[in-house]
Amino acid sequence: MEKVAVLGAGSWGTALAMVLADNDHDVRLWTHKQDHANEMNQRRQNEKYLPGVHLPEKIVAYYQLDEAVKDVSTVLVVVPTKAIREVCSSLNKVLDHKVTMIHGTKGIEPGTLKRVSEMMAEELSNDLYNKIVVLSGPSHAEEVSQRHPTTVTASSTNLKEAEKVQDLFINENFRVYTSPDMIGVELGGALKNIIALGAGISDGLGYGDNAKAALMTRGLAEIARLGSSMGANPLTFIGLSGVGDLIVTCTSIHSRNWKAGNLLGKGHDLAEVLDKMGMVVEGVRTTRAAYELSRKQNIEMPITQGLYQILFEDEKPKAVVDQLMTRLRRHEMEDLSSILSNRYSTQSE
Amino acid sequence: MEKVAVLGAGSWGTALAMVLADNDHDVRLWTHKQDHANEMNQRRQNEKYLPGVHLPEKIVAYYQLDEAVKDVSTVLVVVPTKAIREVCSSLNKVLDHKVTMIHGTKGIEPGTLKRVSEMMAEELSNDLYNKIVVLSGPSHAEEVSQRHPTTVTASSTNLKEAEKVQDLFINENFRVYTSPDMIGVELGGALKNIIALGAGISDGLGYGDNAKAALMTRGLAEIARLGSSMGANPLTFIGLSGVGDLIVTCTSIHSRNWKAGNLLGKGHDLAEVLDKMGMVVEGVRTTRAAYELSRKQNIEMPITQGLYQILFEDEKPKAVVDQLMTRLRRHEMEDLSSILSNRYSTQSE
Repeated sequence: MEKVAVLGAGSWGTALAMVLADNDHDVRLWTHKQDHANEMNQRRQNEKYLPGVHLPEKIVAYYQLDEAVKDVSTVLVVVPTKAIREVCSSLNKVLDHKVTMIHGTKGIEPGTLKRVSEMMAEELSNDLYNKIVVLSGPSHAEEVSQRHPTTVTASSTNLKEAEKVQDLFINENFRVYTSPDMIGVELGGALKNIIALGAGISDGLGYGDNAKAALMTRGLAEIARLGSSMGANPLTFIGLSGVGDLIVTCTSIHSRNWKAGNLLGKGHDLAEVLDKMGMVVEGVRTTRAAYELSRKQNIEMPITQGLYQILFEDEKPKAVVDQLMTRLRRHEMEDLSSILSNRYSTQSE
Repeated sequence: MEKVAVLGAGSWGTALAMVLADNDHDVRLWTHKQDHANEMNQRRQNEKYLPGVHLPEKIVAYYQLDEAVKDVSTVLVVVPTKAIREVCSSLNKVLDHKVTMIHGTKGIEPGTLKRVSEMMAEELSNDLYNKIVVLSGPSHAEEVSQRHPTTVTASSTNLKEAEKVQDLFINENFRVYTSPDMIGVELGGALKNIIALGAGISDGLGYGDNAKAALMTRGLAEIARLGSSMGANPLTFIGLSGVGDLIVTCTSIHSRNWKAGNLLGKGHDLAEVLDKMGMVVEGVRTTRAAYELSRKQNIEMPITQGLYQILFEDEKPKAVVDQLMTRLRRHEMEDLSSILSNRYSTQSE
C-alpha cells in the first residue's frame, strides 16, 4: 500500500486514480480548482470529466498541492501539455523528498519541440525524483473507469522504475507491460493524435473505412519515420503505445481528437470546433509541433503537413485528403524499411 | 483497353470487375451458376453479393468458363480458398494462351498449409501464365463499388507483372502500390481474418475498444512472427496488406469475419454462426490452417490457439479471451524485435 498523488483530475487522471484505489493504495487526486475538489469529495463523482462513475473511498480530492504531495511515495502528473511546466515548477516548491515520478500526458511542446518528460526534467530539481516513467497505451478513460480490460506500457530509461510503476498499477483488468524505449513510447502517444485528427476528417468528409485504414497505415509509417530520426526504436510504433493507441484513437467514439477532426471534415472551422469540444484537444498543438519537428529533422510527413495546412492555413479538408489519397509512391514501405534496415545494420556491426 | 476475365462473382470479384470497367476494360465476370449470370446481365445488379449497386455496361457475366477466358489478356481469380484448385484445374482445360494471372483470395489451405498462389501454381500449367500476382489490402467491396477512396497492394515475385496489374487497376479512387514480398502480402491478408474473429468475439463479449486494440496489437505481432518464420518480410505486416487490412477487418461493420466472431462472443455456436452468415467466412478455415502452421513452424501464437479452442474444441469465448488478456509478458515487443533484429543482422553480414 502506497501513498500516491495524482496531479490532474481530468478523465484520464481520474481513471488512473481509480485503478490505484482498486489496488488499495491511498490516492490524493489534485485539481487546482477548490470547487472541483469539494464536489468530488462530497458527491464521490467527477461530474464534468467522468460523469456517472462512482469514485472509490480510497480517493481523496485536494486543491492544495502541498497537502496532496505530503509523504507520498509516488507522483503521477496527468495535466495537459501546456500546464506541465507550471505544475512541475510548483512541485519544486512543495515537495521535500524523493518520489517515483510518472506522467500520463500525451503531447509535444510547440516551440521547444520537447517531449513531456524532457519538459518535466527541465523544471524539476534532480533530487526530487529518480528517472521519470511514462504510462501510455490504448486506453480510453471511460473504459478504464468501468474496469474493462485494458493494457498499457510503462517506460523509462531506468527499467527498475518502470517495473515499480508496473507493480503499482497492474491488476486483473489493467495490464501493464514495460518498455525501455521511452522516446518511442512518448512520441507514439503524442503523434498518434495527429493521425486521429486526420481519420476524423476523412470520416467527416464521408469517406469510408478503406480510406481511413489507408490513412492510418500511412500515418503510422510517417510517425515511425519521425520517431526513428529522433532516437526511438521503430518497433515501438507497432506496439501498444504505437499502433494500439492509434487504433483506439482513430476508431472509437470516445476519442476527442477523432471528434475534433470529424467536425473539421464536416465543414466547421478550428475555432468553432475547439469551442464545441470544451476539453483540451492535444492533437491540434501536437500537429504544430510535429510539423516543426519534421522540418527540423528533414523528414517527409505528408499527412502532418496536410493537417497543418487545414488547421493553420485555412486549406479545405477535402482538397488536402484527396491529394493525400492520390499521392503515388510505387513501393509501399520503402521509407520505413530503409530506416529499420539501417538501424539493424548499424547494431550488428 | 484490355480484355479481362474475373472468375468469381462474389462481392469482391464484382467490385474489382467494376474498377476494371471504370478503367474502360472489357470485363467478363464469370460465375458457375447460369441463373446468377443471367440475372446480372439482365438486371445489371449482383443482388445477393452487392445489392443496390449498378453494374457498368462494360461488365458482361458468363457462366461458361471457356467463353469467359477466350482471348483475354488477364485472368483474375477471386473464388473462396476451397474452390481455388477446382477453378484452376478447369482453367487448364479451356485456356489456350498465356495470360497475366492475378488472385484476390485471402486464405490458407488446411492440410497442405499452402498459400493461394502456391495452390494455383500446383494446378495451373506453367505455360499458361507468367508469375502470379496477388492483389490485397484494406478494401471492403461495398466501398469500392461506391467509388470510395481505397488503396491496395499488388505483389509478385516478378515486379514487372505486379506493375502491369497496377496499371490495369489504378484510377483516381483506387490506388495500387506494388510490393516484391508476395509471401508477406498473401499471409497478411489471410491471417488478419483470424484476428478479426478474435476482435469480434471481444466485442461480442461486451469488452471495449481498449481490449480490442490490445488484441489487435498482439495479433499483429503474432501473425508477423509466423509470417517471418515462413520467409515474409516482417515490415510487410505494418503496410497496407498487414495492419491496414487488419484495421479495416476488425473495426468495420462490413466485415464478415468480425461479424462471425461477434456472434460467437454473444454465445452462438459455430454451426449456428456459419448458418446465419450465409457467405464464406474464410477466417474459420484459416484459423485451423494457422494453428497447424504455428505447430509446424514452432511459433507461439496464443491468440490463434485460443480461437482454435473456441472454434473446434468447444472452449468458452470468455474464458479464452480473459486468459489472453491477463497473460503476462514483461517486455512488450521482444519477439518481433528479435525477429527483425536477426533478419537485419543477417542481411548486413
